[in-house]
Amino acid sequence: MADDIKILAFDVFGTVVDWHRSIMDEVRSMHLDVDADQFALAWRAGYMPAMQKVMSGELGWTLIDDLHRMILDDLLVRFGVTQLSEEQKRHLNKAWHRLGAWPDTVAGLRRLKQRYTICTLSNGNIGLLTNMAKQAGLPWDCVLSAEVFQKYKPDPATYLGVAKIFDVEPGQVMLVAAHQDDLAHARACGLKTAYIERPLEYGASQVKDVSPHPDNTFHARDLEQLAGLLRC
Amino acid sequence: MADDIKILAFDVFGTVVDWHRSIMDEVRSMHLDVDADQFALAWRAGYMPAMQKVMSGELGWTLIDDLHRMILDDLLVRFGVTQLSEEQKRHLNKAWHRLGAWPDTVAGLRRLKQRYTICTLSNGNIGLLTNMAKQAGLPWDCVLSAEVFQKYKPDPATYLGVAKIFDVEPGQVMLVAAHQDDLAHARACGLKTAYIERPLEYGASQVKDVSPHPDNTFHARDLEQLAGLLRC
Repeated sequence: MADDIKILAFDVFGTVVDWHRSIMDEVRSMHLDVDADQFALAWRAGYMPAMQKVMSGELGWTLIDDLHRMILDDLLVRFGVTQLSEEQKRHLNKAWHRLGAWPDTVAGLRRLKQRYTICTLSNGNIGLLTNMAKQAGLPWDCVLSAEVFQKYKPDPATYLGVAKIFDVEPGQVMLVAAHQDDLAHARACGLKTAYIERPLEYGASQVKDVSPHPDNTFHARDLEQLAGLLRC
Repeated sequence: MADDIKILAFDVFGTVVDWHRSIMDEVRSMHLDVDADQFALAWRAGYMPAMQKVMSGELGWTLIDDLHRMILDDLLVRFGVTQLSEEQKRHLNKAWHRLGAWPDTVAGLRRLKQRYTICTLSNGNIGLLTNMAKQAGLPWDCVLSAEVFQKYKPDPATYLGVAKIFDVEPGQVMLVAAHQDDLAHARACGLKTAYIERPLEYGASQVKDVSPHPDNTFHARDLEQLAGLLRC
């Protein structure tokens, strides 16, 4: 099974980096008078509906950086934060460029990279993903993004786009993600799938169900364990 | 001057990798009964006219891999090569994915990467550039290609696209290239420019003029010297 696979495409937010802790840390470091856990969760929760607006055509093609900012502007009102300058808002919005890796991520990616081409497949924009990689030391062979395809996941154009870019069959690409719905959409396009447990993706207040799904090609605790399963 | 620059975008064919020697080596390793120097030069020479067909709209958007193949098919006829199987032609066409770096490239890029975001800005497709980077050990932060912009250099959308992707001003991007025309187009878009001497780009039979042009921000013998000039 693993021998057919040539390309590992990684979901990023939650799978590779710990957005919840990183956003909480940023909020705290700016001394905002809000519940950092709730603020982080609300920011992330705004992401799906914002992306839906793009997918439905209500909004034209919009980068995640700009969607994050629209959500942030709403949140600051809702959480009663009024003291931030424009520069501080821009800085806070770029917190998503500075997300920290899970402890196993860098070592796991380094091992996987020896045998496979490893790339991102994220709705994050290319600039965001590149800045994040540089800061967190993520050794991608290539940064692929919804921005390249001008379609957001779960549009099939994104999953199939990876195969097309590397001139391989869909079954030679494996999506690695901590989200069963993302993996199900990839599978429907003929990709292999690897589920990564990230029980604390939403923080300790909302521990995630990480039960295996039988349709995934692999199920791993983390990226180091995935590297082991793939004999890297 | 160097302090404003945040992003170094690299032309690839000729600037970072030695296409002439690499293609000659591939042709020789396949024991084709042709003058390898002439074959390599002719293959490369076919590239501009093929790209022009895309830029003029005569051809729809076409990846370099496919342009290379169209040129190759013509060349094989012209050079009287008739014995290649389809698989061998595909293999030979992918020689462009296996181009070798100039001796200074990897060390130079590693130094430059410590201070700048380093990316490709090439008409090569993303798959080609990623395979090449993996094979030659090119440590890009990000692989940018005409494919991302759906425009070939020298379309301004490519040069300005780099600035847009990284959310910086055009003057905070420097194009690094061994071709004065590419640099002139980048400069017209407000980018900084660094010329890299590659006198042997076309082989020993056609040594290239590498005189400095006063409008370039930097002029360097190779990427190691550029790293020195930029105090990396």
